[in-house]
Amino acid sequence: MCNQVEIRLSGSGGQGLILGGIILAEAALMDDKEAVQSQSYGPEARGGASKAEVIISDCAIHYPKVQKCDVLLSLTQKSCDKYLSNLKENGTLIIDESVELPEYDNNYKIHRMPILKTATKDIGRSMVANIVALGALNEIVKVVSDDSLEKAILNRVPRGTENLNRSAFESGKKITLKKE
Amino acid sequence: MCNQVEIRLSGSGGQGLILGGIILAEAALMDDKEAVQSQSYGPEARGGASKAEVIISDCAIHYPKVQKCDVLLSLTQKSCDKYLSNLKENGTLIIDESVELPEYDNNYKIHRMPILKTATKDIGRSMVANIVALGALNEIVKVVSDDSLEKAILNRVPRGTENLNRSAFESGKKITLKKE
Repeated sequence: MCNQVEIRLSGSGGQGLILGGIILAEAALMDDKEAVQSQSYGPEARGGASKAEVIISDCAIHYPKVQKCDVLLSLTQKSCDKYLSNLKENGTLIIDESVELPEYDNNYKIHRMPILKTATKDIGRSMVANIVALGALNEIVKVVSDDSLEKAILNRVPRGTENLNRSAFESGKKITLKKE
Repeated sequence: MCNQVEIRLSGSGGQGLILGGIILAEAALMDDKEAVQSQSYGPEARGGASKAEVIISDCAIHYPKVQKCDVLLSLTQKSCDKYLSNLKENGTLIIDESVELPEYDNNYKIHRMPILKTATKDIGRSMVANIVALGALNEIVKVVSDDSLEKAILNRVPRGTENLNRSAFESGKKITLKKE
């Protein structure tokens, strides 16, 4: 049987979520899994909410398959409001603490944590929010190994920012302790 | 009627072709077109040949649609040998001058030019080969406007490298004159 996880990373443009998706997919490849990373640009990409998609699987991905996702990360209210209906019943919702808990009919596993504040205040750079988010997300859903994820992050971030991003990754793992 | 173009950018890992695909998709969005950018990671991603895919359309993209591409860019022999069978009859093949013209049964429009050498010798940085390639590719197939492509490039390249990348883009447009 194949274990396949569909993940959507959502937020506003400029939060580095495409890069986040690429890093997650490259980490999966290092773990000998298969992955497909994709991004749609169209009317829905306008207006401030953006999303990147990653499918990670133990076996061949019979892509394309348009379906609801297992995991949704939302760094902004707008992106959460927009994409929440794409999350499966009993799926995992990971939101920044600035996002109001949405009204919903379905059951979700909700994790709410200070992703943006950790990037800005603890690390001192808002641009590492995507890496804080990856650390948190993988701590919760464990789709790839920690080692591969760290390696994939360090392969992709701009030279000279490795230590900053390593700290962001570690902080992301630690902020997952509180669950709502 | 919808005008839809499927483009594959292939080469070796590290040549920046994923970023190339993202830039092309973002330029399409600026032109009020729709685009889907994707990348598969699996057994075929190992072994030195990598590819990024972009679909650009005047209307909604009924993705996913697995089909042969209209345009194939190959910066290396390995990637050309691997992905040529994915190119449509009468499709456009754009290859670096280091790539031997493949044996083939189908008719292709072949454009062969010094993409890698232009990046290394004229611009002085092998890392801009992806931008030289985008300039050349768009000069040949005209999928997005020049203005949008330049803007998308400058939005995405590392700060401080704008002039370098603008030169790479201009050089890419100029090397398309010779057609084999």
